[in-house]
Amino acid sequence: MRKRIENGTELTSRRKFVKRLGGTALAGLAIGGIRTAGGRTEKLEATASPPKDPRAYGQRSRFVTSGRLGRSSTAFPSLSPLQDSEGIITPAALHFTVGVPGSGPWEIDPQKQRLMIHGMVGRPLIFTMDELKRLPSVSRIHFLECAGNSYLRLPFRQNPVTVQHTHGMTGCSEWTGVLLSVLLREAGVQKAASWVVAEGSDPDKHWRSIPVEKAMDDVLVAYAQNGEPVRPEQGYPLRLVVPGWEGNINVKWLRRIKAVDQPYMTRQETTKYADVRPDGKGRWFNFEMAAKSVITFPSGGQQLPGRGFYEIRGLAWSGRGTVRKVEVSTDGGRTWTDAELQSPVLRIAHTRFRFAWKWDGQEALLQSRCTDDLGDTQPTMDEFAKLWGVSKDYWLSTSNFIHHCNAIQPWKVTADGRVRNAIFS
Amino acid sequence: MRKRIENGTELTSRRKFVKRLGGTALAGLAIGGIRTAGGRTEKLEATASPPKDPRAYGQRSRFVTSGRLGRSSTAFPSLSPLQDSEGIITPAALHFTVGVPGSGPWEIDPQKQRLMIHGMVGRPLIFTMDELKRLPSVSRIHFLECAGNSYLRLPFRQNPVTVQHTHGMTGCSEWTGVLLSVLLREAGVQKAASWVVAEGSDPDKHWRSIPVEKAMDDVLVAYAQNGEPVRPEQGYPLRLVVPGWEGNINVKWLRRIKAVDQPYMTRQETTKYADVRPDGKGRWFNFEMAAKSVITFPSGGQQLPGRGFYEIRGLAWSGRGTVRKVEVSTDGGRTWTDAELQSPVLRIAHTRFRFAWKWDGQEALLQSRCTDDLGDTQPTMDEFAKLWGVSKDYWLSTSNFIHHCNAIQPWKVTADGRVRNAIFS
Repeated sequence: MRKRIENGTELTSRRKFVKRLGGTALAGLAIGGIRTAGGRTEKLEATASPPKDPRAYGQRSRFVTSGRLGRSSTAFPSLSPLQDSEGIITPAALHFTVGVPGSGPWEIDPQKQRLMIHGMVGRPLIFTMDELKRLPSVSRIHFLECAGNSYLRLPFRQNPVTVQHTHGMTGCSEWTGVLLSVLLREAGVQKAASWVVAEGSDPDKHWRSIPVEKAMDDVLVAYAQNGEPVRPEQGYPLRLVVPGWEGNINVKWLRRIKAVDQPYMTRQETTKYADVRPDGKGRWFNFEMAAKSVITFPSGGQQLPGRGFYEIRGLAWSGRGTVRKVEVSTDGGRTWTDAELQSPVLRIAHTRFRFAWKWDGQEALLQSRCTDDLGDTQPTMDEFAKLWGVSKDYWLSTSNFIHHCNAIQPWKVTADGRVRNAIFS
Repeated sequence: MRKRIENGTELTSRRKFVKRLGGTALAGLAIGGIRTAGGRTEKLEATASPPKDPRAYGQRSRFVTSGRLGRSSTAFPSLSPLQDSEGIITPAALHFTVGVPGSGPWEIDPQKQRLMIHGMVGRPLIFTMDELKRLPSVSRIHFLECAGNSYLRLPFRQNPVTVQHTHGMTGCSEWTGVLLSVLLREAGVQKAASWVVAEGSDPDKHWRSIPVEKAMDDVLVAYAQNGEPVRPEQGYPLRLVVPGWEGNINVKWLRRIKAVDQPYMTRQETTKYADVRPDGKGRWFNFEMAAKSVITFPSGGQQLPGRGFYEIRGLAWSGRGTVRKVEVSTDGGRTWTDAELQSPVLRIAHTRFRFAWKWDGQEALLQSRCTDDLGDTQPTMDEFAKLWGVSKDYWLSTSNFIHHCNAIQPWKVTADGRVRNAIFS
């Protein structure tokens, strides 16, 4: 039983964009050949093969190949495939990772894992994993982002074509663990303690200093991510989650928290994550990640099949609070319109935005702009570079320069439907 | 450098429960032996081994072995390890599965996948996956639950010891896809259409009838789960998500939606999922999953190390709306106290509850009771069985009897700290 299908014309609307069948009496349609809009005859096949063995721990389809990008010599860093992301949860298996050379997804035996709380405390404490898990717990959905996300010119992404290259150092998960404040109170943190130093068990002894106000506020000692134990490359069995602050403070493979009276000026703090302007001024302890957004579809390297309806989708976040609005422009910044935000909009979490767009087949420049509940709005790349006393071109040509770039990301759609990174033009 | 540690006494409070170090001058402590509360000397070792190769798609630690339980002959059903769950997100790899014999995790090529909307519509339509993904999308966090979850006496769980056996047929994910209402409107669903029939591409042609009011409300045609494509065993590349309704209506490997003027009385509807009481009365089309909760820690088969502080944790949900409160009783039902609910509490989603408990070492009976925003509250097993005109003992001894059991689950903690299923006592 076959039905004639109208020849498709250009996909200029959602209505036209779907394939049409000529008849309406298809109730009880047997499986048969159906001609597509392009004139090809297709069968609606039962596209299934026999069942597999049971699996205690399921795997994804062999047709799904989306993966992280990274350097081949070490496991770090690796970039999340944001172009394939949906919703706000990043699968743990695809969550970005960044580490210092020599670090890696350690095989730590949870039976041997200990966490020590020491320094300026009344009662130094050592916890086993079982003990930590007995304590009052919380679960919170938070994003993490590397301070170097977006246009820090790292060797492995000299030519950032896709949104994975430009923005792939962020992810969002439901983290579960114990509030650090519970542990510090339990240890009797002293009034004179103004900072804590968190230490990982990697060979580099990754250390970071955190003001005690933050430590007593919302910092999590996390043992679970998205409903299962934190993955090795995320710090199994224990890591810090420091909501909204640059990724490297979220110390992985956590072993000690020391209460102290001053920041420790560790190597990470005084060299790698201290940003210096050409005029000699700079920033130490620039913790918070700013308001930011990026369009994940359509994005660099993708190909639109033709004019017509598209849903522009992207992610927005702010380390300072909650996303208040995301505006989208499809005309090079002349007009901006509010996108729809996926609810609930959560504090210090990825926020998915969606925007209906009808592409007329002409060249278009797509941009998104996030404003958080403090009123902070993303700058353009020119504006952002100016804050640091340089030009955009200087910025983009410099290696290992400054972190915390939250500039608006422009994607250009050319008349042939190709999408490319327009930040360099 | 060693520090004397107080000998631990019984763990009767959170404060005492952690190990104590005698001194406070541990700043700069070198790695050394430390005596534990039990008198054993331990080293705070750098419990790490060299880094592994980079992984585009990360795996969990080899020390994490939590898995689904199921029959060995087929991939279905498989039960989620709720005893190891944290927060509200179920990892896709651990999400429960149920299917009819012969069904399985099909290897469907997404390029060949089609979805047909037909029957009583003005314009029958066929969609490719790419076309579906261009349409307006939504992401929503919803639970799924098999109608047979909890005390349907299936062969593979004759002796339900753990919470995985008793309640493992539920999971909660962030689902992304197109609202079915968008597709039905696009196809011009006729006014006379009062039902739709959803059909999977498994060999059994799993069919279920859904009232058009629900189909036009919140039903999702989902292609993503927790930020990546739906897994094969969850219906890759396309499945229905029918929020709050029994699992088997959430048709997997979805291929056709037919608008019709009456339910189709399919085999699933007239035999498997129609429940008959001993007096001959019964229920067809008992769609909604009722208000329910279960304590996941401490739960059957677990062992408490000793008296003292514990956080009782569990999950609550309702297919009819939002969890309003969860009460916990630790004294056999004499007193009930509100547990803390993890925020945000989402509609038709798992809700994590937490309850601080100090165990005095005596036998204790732990129970939880959910009330949803319609005011529905979980019954006891006696009350639930009575609704069906039978005794609790009759209920628990009968095979393949009635679905939709939402009775309160009691766990007994014996004086030696063992936890066992008290539903049979």
